Amino acid sequence: MTKSIKTKVCIIGSGPSGLLLSQLLANAGIESVVLDRRDRAYIEGRIRAGVLEQGTVAALEEAGVADRLHREGLPHDGFELAFDGARHRIDLAGLTGKSVMVYGQTEVTKDLFDKRVEQGQQFFFDVEEVSPRDLKTGTPEVRFLHAGEEVIVSCDYVAGCDGYHGVSRQAIPDDVLRTYERVYPFGWLGIMVEQPPVNHELIYANHRRGFALASMRSATRSRYYIQCDLSDKVEDWSDARFWEEFATRLGPETADHLRTGPSFEKSIAPLRSFVAEPMRYGNLLLAGDAAHIVPPTGAKGLNLAVADVRLLARALTEHYAGNDAYLESYSETVLARVWKVERFSWQLSTLMHQFPENSPFEARMQRAEFDYVASSEAASRSIAENYVGLPLD
Amino acid sequence: MTKSIKTKVCIIGSGPSGLLLSQLLANAGIESVVLDRRDRAYIEGRIRAGVLEQGTVAALEEAGVADRLHREGLPHDGFELAFDGARHRIDLAGLTGKSVMVYGQTEVTKDLFDKRVEQGQQFFFDVEEVSPRDLKTGTPEVRFLHAGEEVIVSCDYVAGCDGYHGVSRQAIPDDVLRTYERVYPFGWLGIMVEQPPVNHELIYANHRRGFALASMRSATRSRYYIQCDLSDKVEDWSDARFWEEFATRLGPETADHLRTGPSFEKSIAPLRSFVAEPMRYGNLLLAGDAAHIVPPTGAKGLNLAVADVRLLARALTEHYAGNDAYLESYSETVLARVWKVERFSWQLSTLMHQFPENSPFEARMQRAEFDYVASSEAASRSIAENYVGLPLD
Repeated sequence: MTKSIKTKVCIIGSGPSGLLLSQLLANAGIESVVLDRRDRAYIEGRIRAGVLEQGTVAALEEAGVADRLHREGLPHDGFELAFDGARHRIDLAGLTGKSVMVYGQTEVTKDLFDKRVEQGQQFFFDVEEVSPRDLKTGTPEVRFLHAGEEVIVSCDYVAGCDGYHGVSRQAIPDDVLRTYERVYPFGWLGIMVEQPPVNHELIYANHRRGFALASMRSATRSRYYIQCDLSDKVEDWSDARFWEEFATRLGPETADHLRTGPSFEKSIAPLRSFVAEPMRYGNLLLAGDAAHIVPPTGAKGLNLAVADVRLLARALTEHYAGNDAYLESYSETVLARVWKVERFSWQLSTLMHQFPENSPFEARMQRAEFDYVASSEAASRSIAENYVGLPLD
Repeated sequence: MTKSIKTKVCIIGSGPSGLLLSQLLANAGIESVVLDRRDRAYIEGRIRAGVLEQGTVAALEEAGVADRLHREGLPHDGFELAFDGARHRIDLAGLTGKSVMVYGQTEVTKDLFDKRVEQGQQFFFDVEEVSPRDLKTGTPEVRFLHAGEEVIVSCDYVAGCDGYHGVSRQAIPDDVLRTYERVYPFGWLGIMVEQPPVNHELIYANHRRGFALASMRSATRSRYYIQCDLSDKVEDWSDARFWEEFATRLGPETADHLRTGPSFEKSIAPLRSFVAEPMRYGNLLLAGDAAHIVPPTGAKGLNLAVADVRLLARALTEHYAGNDAYLESYSETVLARVWKVERFSWQLSTLMHQFPENSPFEARMQRAEFDYVASSEAASRSIAENYVGLPLD
């Protein structure tokens, strides 16, 4: 038995990209179907970044899911860079007139789910064998299995919002797809702890023993990271070992304010820069991690995905209003911004980590970059304008 | 027979650093002796960079050797960056309120020589076996052979202004000296031609076939460069081959204005970043290329040397006025600036050349950097403030 469904846009992936897209489309009266290999509980449980650009906040406001964000989010007007004891604050508000909002990706996802469910969005969870096809025709389909049943969604457009490991990008033929990648020679070990943050703003620290990041999710919940070897396992890092290393890298002055406690989440993630081109193939349109990955330094992953989705929602909305210009230029427009954000994430990662392959000259260039940024308003503003988010297009 | 001479400062090297130092010291009533392995004609004949920062112009004014510079020099309010056809002007005047002056290093050297000779500076040219010694005592000496005679200069301080290949840096023991180096995997092939420049401002171009630079020495004399292989010989590059390659890299729009002609100088130079620390050892004080080399992109070599010399002249002048604070901090102060300028020269070189070892991702990062700079006033200002010259201290 095959179940046939007809819709305008079939959205593969129910993370923040897919959810936001379905919401923005719904707001414009454009019907969609959302499917995911996982279920809602799993998706909401994933812990990701937690710093939102002003443009991301604006998109969530536009989508109508920003009430809790404004109640619970922490606006931040700056952050600190530290380098072997020297510190430099990037005054976001002073340099750009903008700020960022600390609010977990998990919370964004929950807010979007609540709204989509409330509005009766059609979802398929726990789907298998997802296969987008006929993408170069005007009548593409997405076929998958759901609860043992074959489902075929006929649609105008397929939105690939299914992340780096998803099927959407893989549906683009090899002779069309170009990929660019940088795998960093280290990972991030992150913990979550129910303690007030060591500093009211984020601190990105480059210490000779490696990078450390003091971040947070709320006034009582801290998110801390340290650069670790790619071969390290979570079991290698007891809480005690983590705290000792983290405090060393923050330096005694900051570590004095550190409140430790049992971690309730601990994980290791690799760092990767990745871009796939083009982001449109026939009637398949990619958005977010399906097309690109940034290293987490600077927290651009979710923000970049939201910018993609804003551009994609605009392109589809204009299409159904009779104007195909935005759809025609979607891949080019979105990639121009993607490469700039990739550049910033790569630059900040390159500046703030210890690279075993760096020559002594390169290590001094890294320090000189920090010293120059600390002495230059123009260089600080350049970092600030990227951190609060580049213009959408 | 040994000739003994007593002076306050013995300056090794009669290039622009040594000459300017002797002039600034003379202006302050401090006696010096200048010696060089070469003679005046050889030193004046060396062709080097030709873009002076405002601080360099100020130093030459202070030294009293800026009359011809102001008559013949060409003030430039901007320059262009080009990347595979795309162009972006860095508006130096608009972004920083400052400009630079196009005036050849050769001319600076002539002006300094004229003034020093006019004022009766004691020179020793064509010296051999130069040996600075007793540097950790209060009574250092420089011994050398001149016209077959041994000369010993007893002095308070030895100024090492004798360039990368000089003896001064080598007088610092291995267990004290730290060196940092980056050798770039290509060279610059430069020609000089008696033709008006292709553009009224400099153009730095990154083309997929390699870097090209359209520079000038005057309204009728052009200085053009292209990135070449390290294994290339000058004989490999006929004028015809140079012009064809240069025009290709500039692109058709610019090359339309190119006026070719027989080159009267043609040479290949390697690109190197190099820093030696410390810049003081006992009573030996290094300045300019003796302590550091920058790749020529951005024309920082002479400007950096002049900044060193200004700080060194101040340190010595203050010392003889009874204040040792600037002398004590000389190495630290000057190196802080050196590393920033090394960073800029490295950054601009990295941005504007083709690197055979670049991965596809890195090549795209380079392009993204250009696109970002072209779109960002903050990033353009950062380049501009480095190009016109960072503050002295």
